[in-house]
Amino acid sequence: MAVTDDELLDLAARVGAACRESRLTIATAESCTGGLVAHLLTEIPGASEYVRGGIVAYANEVKVGSLAVPADVLEAHGAVSAQVAIAMADGARRALGADLALGVTGVAGPGGGTADKPVGLTYVAVADAAGSDVQRHLWQLDRTGNKRASAAVALALVLARLELSGSRP
Amino acid sequence: MAVTDDELLDLAARVGAACRESRLTIATAESCTGGLVAHLLTEIPGASEYVRGGIVAYANEVKVGSLAVPADVLEAHGAVSAQVAIAMADGARRALGADLALGVTGVAGPGGGTADKPVGLTYVAVADAAGSDVQRHLWQLDRTGNKRASAAVALALVLARLELSGSRP
Repeated sequence: MAVTDDELLDLAARVGAACRESRLTIATAESCTGGLVAHLLTEIPGASEYVRGGIVAYANEVKVGSLAVPADVLEAHGAVSAQVAIAMADGARRALGADLALGVTGVAGPGGGTADKPVGLTYVAVADAAGSDVQRHLWQLDRTGNKRASAAVALALVLARLELSGSRP
Repeated sequence: MAVTDDELLDLAARVGAACRESRLTIATAESCTGGLVAHLLTEIPGASEYVRGGIVAYANEVKVGSLAVPADVLEAHGAVSAQVAIAMADGARRALGADLALGVTGVAGPGGGTADKPVGLTYVAVADAAGSDVQRHLWQLDRTGNKRASAAVALALVLARLELSGSRP
């Protein structure tokens, strides 16, 4: 099921509104989505008030060097794993000085899939000072569709976290 | 004049083909385009072979902290300047370990414009080991249109640099 432009932009606008309301800043750490989530967040006018920035970490050396993902976590679990998604989110939060950050890592395809980590496998994570959440998804779409579906669930996960944090005393 | 999706993706594919042919890796440093250029580059299947990654530096602290843009250059010329565009490209090249990198900084609008730095003003730069090129543009579009036009000229500037470097002995 393809995600439309309107759905993606609506999610980005809702994340933006929730950031404003809770006075929290946000950052992104993206592998398979390649900057799409940051692009969507910055389509919303006034995004500079809550978007600190983002890191597109395609090469593993960038995950380690710019996001401080521990090399032993990458080695033990692979770049496409729940552990790395969380480490990317947490690394972006610290490196970019944001209250909250998301991490996305997956196999967008058409190449790069294995029996263990097939094309479409994606982990999305969100991290803030109170902890992190992570989700696993397996898409059956083309490269563009996989990127868009991953961006949508990443934004939805952030939105859920922001709504939860808004309800904390 | 709006830039179409097909035009943007065609530019990204041509940059990818030129990177492959010259066996060079690429990285991005984006302010006003907010990740759009990295997103476009990573729409091309196999992009992981030449895209190292990118940094979306919305906050000035991210430009300094993650891209090593000198604080005195930011202070002297402002975030939207030829000097900062070049420093961002050069910083991304070093921080992400790429042969070549692009930098984009501008005022996407609708807010944030001043008499000196109006909405639509954008600088795009490319840097490699041999030096850098920079261009100034002034768009008269909306936020999305300004981002897309800036992404197009950034990719075209990279393409010209890759073609030049391909012709060097």
